[in-house]
Amino acid sequence: MRDETIPTIHRGIAGMQHQSAVWRAAGLKSALVPTMGALHEGHLDLVRTASAAADRVVVSIFVNPTQFAPTEDFAAYPREEAADLAKLAALGVDAVFAPTIAEMYPDGYATRIVVDGPARGLESDSRPHFFGGVATVVAKLFISCAPDIAIFGEKDYQQLLVVRRMGADLGLPVDVVGFPTVRAADGLALSSRNAYLSPEERSVAPRLHAALQAAAAAIRAGKPPVPDALAAAERDLDDAGFAVDYVALRNADTLAEVSDPRAGPLRLLAAARLGRTRLIDNIAV
Amino acid sequence: MRDETIPTIHRGIAGMQHQSAVWRAAGLKSALVPTMGALHEGHLDLVRTASAAADRVVVSIFVNPTQFAPTEDFAAYPREEAADLAKLAALGVDAVFAPTIAEMYPDGYATRIVVDGPARGLESDSRPHFFGGVATVVAKLFISCAPDIAIFGEKDYQQLLVVRRMGADLGLPVDVVGFPTVRAADGLALSSRNAYLSPEERSVAPRLHAALQAAAAAIRAGKPPVPDALAAAERDLDDAGFAVDYVALRNADTLAEVSDPRAGPLRLLAAARLGRTRLIDNIAV
Repeated sequence: MRDETIPTIHRGIAGMQHQSAVWRAAGLKSALVPTMGALHEGHLDLVRTASAAADRVVVSIFVNPTQFAPTEDFAAYPREEAADLAKLAALGVDAVFAPTIAEMYPDGYATRIVVDGPARGLESDSRPHFFGGVATVVAKLFISCAPDIAIFGEKDYQQLLVVRRMGADLGLPVDVVGFPTVRAADGLALSSRNAYLSPEERSVAPRLHAALQAAAAAIRAGKPPVPDALAAAERDLDDAGFAVDYVALRNADTLAEVSDPRAGPLRLLAAARLGRTRLIDNIAV
Repeated sequence: MRDETIPTIHRGIAGMQHQSAVWRAAGLKSALVPTMGALHEGHLDLVRTASAAADRVVVSIFVNPTQFAPTEDFAAYPREEAADLAKLAALGVDAVFAPTIAEMYPDGYATRIVVDGPARGLESDSRPHFFGGVATVVAKLFISCAPDIAIFGEKDYQQLLVVRRMGADLGLPVDVVGFPTVRAADGLALSSRNAYLSPEERSVAPRLHAALQAAAAAIRAGKPPVPDALAAAERDLDDAGFAVDYVALRNADTLAEVSDPRAGPLRLLAAARLGRTRLIDNIAV
């Protein structure tokens, strides 16, 4: 990544693949930061990390229709390409892969990638279409950009593990790296969807992170029992006005359900709706 | 491809990817011929075509468990690696990709690629698991070998179209080329499964191709109507002792059902069992 370069914008896959092949032939490592645009400080931190980890940085911007359900916010999802490109130019990003819908889903398109394992439960219970859409589009982004490293925010922790599983299973030579969640000063995880929150909802939203911290502290202390700690977090969130989808303790590597909380790395994950906005968060235990 | 080279055998994906990257950096085009081994003259013709079309030739040998149903012949499928390697060395093949099961399906493996469109009906009616297994393993072979061209026999015509669709949909930069079916002098399409036929079945087997030729001639002549021509072919096969799975006329590019046989390229496809052996064949109309 170079200072103050104007990034090359690739709308087509072949051009992006050619760019990547040129870098590879020159012995340069590239890093991809996949995004749906509407870039916030969380994304920009991923880009900075990418630039420290590789010689060339590609940011993809694609609002992927197949990971939204018909009832979800595909049409309303924020699109701010000009502002996004300005932010990326200021960071010296080398290339932006911003394909058209027709390039990603050409006429007669008929292929989808389905991941089991880490995709089971949690987000899939609320959004059964979601990880199929994500795994398919991310595979195509990996094939198009052919990066050595791809950086995903840990805010979407289950997505990170699903993408890592997919990449390993298909033999894609990409190192899928998780980046710690970037938070506002009050603890709220940065997310493009935070823009949907009313001022009042915004003031309540940090309690999602607070509830997870309290539950993690209780689990670490070994009391109360795990189910009681999770139930207490749910109760906190109910009381604050959230509609809780889940608060769950899982194995941090596989997302398998945990029978013995003393065994293996643990991750505490939650999803809850505040008004019409669905927030997710997770922390290590 | 070079004369009488002893091919490098790659058991692992990373080594194969490295080999392919070295060729690419040197400006050499590579062609892949995917096989399940037990190589016959049909395969060797694909290899010769590959060597004419590219600078380097890779043959993959992998008996893929996920495209066999539990009731099918995975355990009994012929495995003759030493003989296969000798044949490939004689043809000057550059590399053989013969991965282990553990390399292709590592612990925790959880990903599958599902293709709709050309995978609908025909083979899928008899073998619902089949194209999911094929699309997934071929995607992984493409990602592992990173060829410029991949050559598939037209004997498995539906498979050819499913693989071409999958490659295009995922943006894999591989030109998927179909090669005309290689036949014995009596018309029987070469297939590793022909080895299962008894001498008596072997003498009857060419009638599959003959029935397709008769039906194609009738359809080209415009009489009888298409359904009658297909029914006559089924009757011929029944009389010869086949149990027919299908005899079908489809669009040659999409495998969509055909309402007007005067429109577009046509393909006539059939599958039928002779004793315990299932044979397939197809011809242009």
